[in-house]
Amino acid sequence: MSQPIRLALIGLGKIAHDQHLPAIANDPAFELVATVSRHGEAIGSLPFFATIDALAESGIAVDAVALCTPPQVRRALAATAIDRGWHVFLEKPPAASLVEASALRALAAAKGVSLFASWHSRHAAGVEPARAWLAERMLRDATITWAEDVRHWHPGQDWIFEPGGFGVFDPAINALSIATRIFPRALFVETAEIEIPANRAAAIAATVRFRDEAGSAIDARFDFLKQGTQSWDIVAHTDGGTLTLSEGGTALAIDGDAKASGADELASEYPALYRRFAELVRAGESEVDLSPLQLVADIHLKARIRIVDPFAW
Amino acid sequence: MSQPIRLALIGLGKIAHDQHLPAIANDPAFELVATVSRHGEAIGSLPFFATIDALAESGIAVDAVALCTPPQVRRALAATAIDRGWHVFLEKPPAASLVEASALRALAAAKGVSLFASWHSRHAAGVEPARAWLAERMLRDATITWAEDVRHWHPGQDWIFEPGGFGVFDPAINALSIATRIFPRALFVETAEIEIPANRAAAIAATVRFRDEAGSAIDARFDFLKQGTQSWDIVAHTDGGTLTLSEGGTALAIDGDAKASGADELASEYPALYRRFAELVRAGESEVDLSPLQLVADIHLKARIRIVDPFAW
Repeated sequence: MSQPIRLALIGLGKIAHDQHLPAIANDPAFELVATVSRHGEAIGSLPFFATIDALAESGIAVDAVALCTPPQVRRALAATAIDRGWHVFLEKPPAASLVEASALRALAAAKGVSLFASWHSRHAAGVEPARAWLAERMLRDATITWAEDVRHWHPGQDWIFEPGGFGVFDPAINALSIATRIFPRALFVETAEIEIPANRAAAIAATVRFRDEAGSAIDARFDFLKQGTQSWDIVAHTDGGTLTLSEGGTALAIDGDAKASGADELASEYPALYRRFAELVRAGESEVDLSPLQLVADIHLKARIRIVDPFAW
Repeated sequence: MSQPIRLALIGLGKIAHDQHLPAIANDPAFELVATVSRHGEAIGSLPFFATIDALAESGIAVDAVALCTPPQVRRALAATAIDRGWHVFLEKPPAASLVEASALRALAAAKGVSLFASWHSRHAAGVEPARAWLAERMLRDATITWAEDVRHWHPGQDWIFEPGGFGVFDPAINALSIATRIFPRALFVETAEIEIPANRAAAIAATVRFRDEAGSAIDARFDFLKQGTQSWDIVAHTDGGTLTLSEGGTALAIDGDAKASGADELASEYPALYRRFAELVRAGESEVDLSPLQLVADIHLKARIRIVDPFAW
């Protein structure tokens, strides 16, 4: 049994508290040695710092960092960490742009450290069985519906509507991380409309038609203003029946019969992510699949823009 | 001396007539065997077809195609050509989106044909000496000014303002193909503002601040409404003097002293592209650098959008 990986957690927002801290605490492969957050925050008796440079200067031995900050500042922090020889776990999306993410991949390869661009939704209970089922059938068409209330899930998080914050594509990229995994062919953006509030930079809704390499249509609706029932669903019609992947990838049904389900989506996804990160570090490998980010960039590149009502919390 | 490469030219717009046809005619490595254009167009006594399928069914022996259509239809045509085992020369931009271009690269690799994503501006006379000069100096800051009159250069070409037509990024991607070649470090989009006419989908102007991996600022202005003097200039201030690359990469000056210049930019660029394509085909290799397209996608992903006056020809 090797020594635990000495990990520092950088960025102590909602996702760090809800998911990263419990997942790290329950994984013997990791030892949490410090945290970094803008204003500093004590987690039990753990050393804490306001900047990654202060952490580095503290002399605390660090093998790896997990980056849970908003995407806008992720690249610079990751580059600093890689430069110090630390392995890096990136929350999704891995950076605020494709070139940023690609540069991190090149930097990690040059430094010989492990870089893990994580996509938590790919570890939801229904995703792997969905992939296997679709691999043996011919897709006719599919719909993706990712509709949630930003006021409930991201209360007051203004960064999400700033440039590089992804707006509705912050949740939508989860859908796309699943779609790029379960559908066997590349997805091309055929048409897209993006809705941007008049007082914000990033999208609050989008309607996209993808076509896969075989010509099948995949229609997606991403909505950040959904009240009432929230939807995180992918429905795929094939020559061998209908697949329904719901609750963010957690629940899988074939022709209406439940095949897989997990009680709490994220509570199983983050432990899986940390197991994968430990594997990568032990093996000296990286895992950086940028295809969900490429799709989000392509949507922006090809979209018609519609300016909509201002958004207020 | 090997047999000439039997080439079909697909898409007979302005760039095909102005540049591709003369470059092919003057290059003994190629034999033009057919053309394909939507309405069919006779070039001398050459066989011509309305579709790529009609070309394929004609029984004419083809080794390679050059694709000069608007970007929106490029991927499907290229995929068909690759599927038939033909080598493919792509005008810039190589496709309407990143996933489209990446999929073509994968398809070409799987089929064992040569794919060439061409960037003609990289073959302008001043680009290689500029790259060599900058490699030995430290960049302080730079400006990119690409300002031209769309009404003069693309008269009536409505496709350019449609989704996937790139708008002002059709010329701007030339600037970015040079910038990604001559600057030694990766460029990140720090801030961007894109101006979109109220009656169009694609940008008519943009202001972008890039920062390179070392933190130096590169400010770019792309303008499709420039009257009078047109500008296609990159000016770089370094610790060892000022580099001015003007006329689309054709003219290079260091601290005001001319170092390189070509009489007619495009007239030397396209012959160089065809020489490179012949090399790739002979060597069984592909050349697909998507970094200029990644930057354009990143600009769209991170931009603030400003809706501006409607555009009419």
